[in-house]
Amino acid sequence: MALNGIRALVFDVFGTVVDWRSGIARQAGPFLARHGAGAADPAAFADAWRKLYDPAMNAVRSGQRPFVRLDVLHRENLEAILPAFGIAPARVPAEELTELNLAWHRLDPWRDVVPGLTRLKARYIIAPLSNGNLILMLDMAKRAGLPWDAILGAELARAYKPAPEAYLRTLDILAMRPEEVCMVAAHNGDLAAARGCGLRTAFVPRPMEHGPGQTKDLQPEQDWDVVAADFGALADQLGV
Amino acid sequence: MALNGIRALVFDVFGTVVDWRSGIARQAGPFLARHGAGAADPAAFADAWRKLYDPAMNAVRSGQRPFVRLDVLHRENLEAILPAFGIAPARVPAEELTELNLAWHRLDPWRDVVPGLTRLKARYIIAPLSNGNLILMLDMAKRAGLPWDAILGAELARAYKPAPEAYLRTLDILAMRPEEVCMVAAHNGDLAAARGCGLRTAFVPRPMEHGPGQTKDLQPEQDWDVVAADFGALADQLGV
Repeated sequence: MALNGIRALVFDVFGTVVDWRSGIARQAGPFLARHGAGAADPAAFADAWRKLYDPAMNAVRSGQRPFVRLDVLHRENLEAILPAFGIAPARVPAEELTELNLAWHRLDPWRDVVPGLTRLKARYIIAPLSNGNLILMLDMAKRAGLPWDAILGAELARAYKPAPEAYLRTLDILAMRPEEVCMVAAHNGDLAAARGCGLRTAFVPRPMEHGPGQTKDLQPEQDWDVVAADFGALADQLGV
Repeated sequence: MALNGIRALVFDVFGTVVDWRSGIARQAGPFLARHGAGAADPAAFADAWRKLYDPAMNAVRSGQRPFVRLDVLHRENLEAILPAFGIAPARVPAEELTELNLAWHRLDPWRDVVPGLTRLKARYIIAPLSNGNLILMLDMAKRAGLPWDAILGAELARAYKPAPEAYLRTLDILAMRPEEVCMVAAHNGDLAAARGCGLRTAFVPRPMEHGPGQTKDLQPEQDWDVVAADFGALADQLGV
């Protein structure tokens, strides 16, 4: 077994656990049509929304603004991209924006996720360590049947990955040594930051996260402790 | 239905969900015997340990000391009570104190809890809102099969009940209005504080929490929104 001594597995969520691109596109389609942007590609809308994700968190990471939860950043980013799709945010009822913003709470997991997590849960503590806020993760889990033991992440740590505080404060809350916790992610950057804090690492590639043209995170870029094709293969490698 | 519009049920844990007195007594017995205090009543030891719980949190509530998690307070309180049982803390190996301190992570739920929570979970978000810290609640849940959707509480809020911040910060994290959340507790004082923050309230008496001589919290002291004999009756009243 590649990961002796592990007690908890913590998971990146957007991309690693759920397919955000298809989920946002599916829910944005009717909204775009209703507001005269029926010709727009809903997947391009999902990509545009997601493109502002990292810059928005950077304002928090750099100390430019105090910590605010991801739901707030998503809402700001939504209003920021609408003009590029020919929609004036001020002309959309606020409730409709609030509703569309909840699309991030209603994303579907990749097919291997629920059976894989169910197996892993039998031996390990499993929890998301996502930049998504608690109620976002909770709504998502409840809808999709993700059997988390607890919801960890940026809102508890009050720091966004890949800032070290996001990992270190999570270790503190778990009262575990870094080598007792394994970060599971489809993103080399997340794993590199986790490794920098002493965590163990498991890479599960998601080659369709960004659609058919994906070019990054197709391969492991370091010798991660585990590389597994999906959560079932991860459970196999951990012997559960 | 007494609680229209409720989306989340948040639970007091020590006393309401788990029988801390029997659980601590069961685990303290062998420790006492090993350290020459075999004649002591383990239930009295549990009571003594618990008696320092509220004063210890008061130091945090009053601002005398910064927030520290309950595991830390439990450990300090454990060392404080040992002399009264004829045990010098400095003569007990630290690992043994650490291990006994984890007794709070290994408490058994009352018999109605797991089936009741399982029914309630089908319709509501269910989560502990305890003064116990996250890993304490997580270890307890994993061992006992408590099917929480998330772990809320003092460590997230960085405030100990019944301080209003403990309830108000929980509402903020849930992104819910107070009337959408119901506090479930065996303690009138907890419910009074929750009601003061606008939450709905459900009283589930636990007449054996303090053993056969219990005198307090045997009856509701206000017109709580729901009064139920156990978690099964609570599920009945909520129509799930």
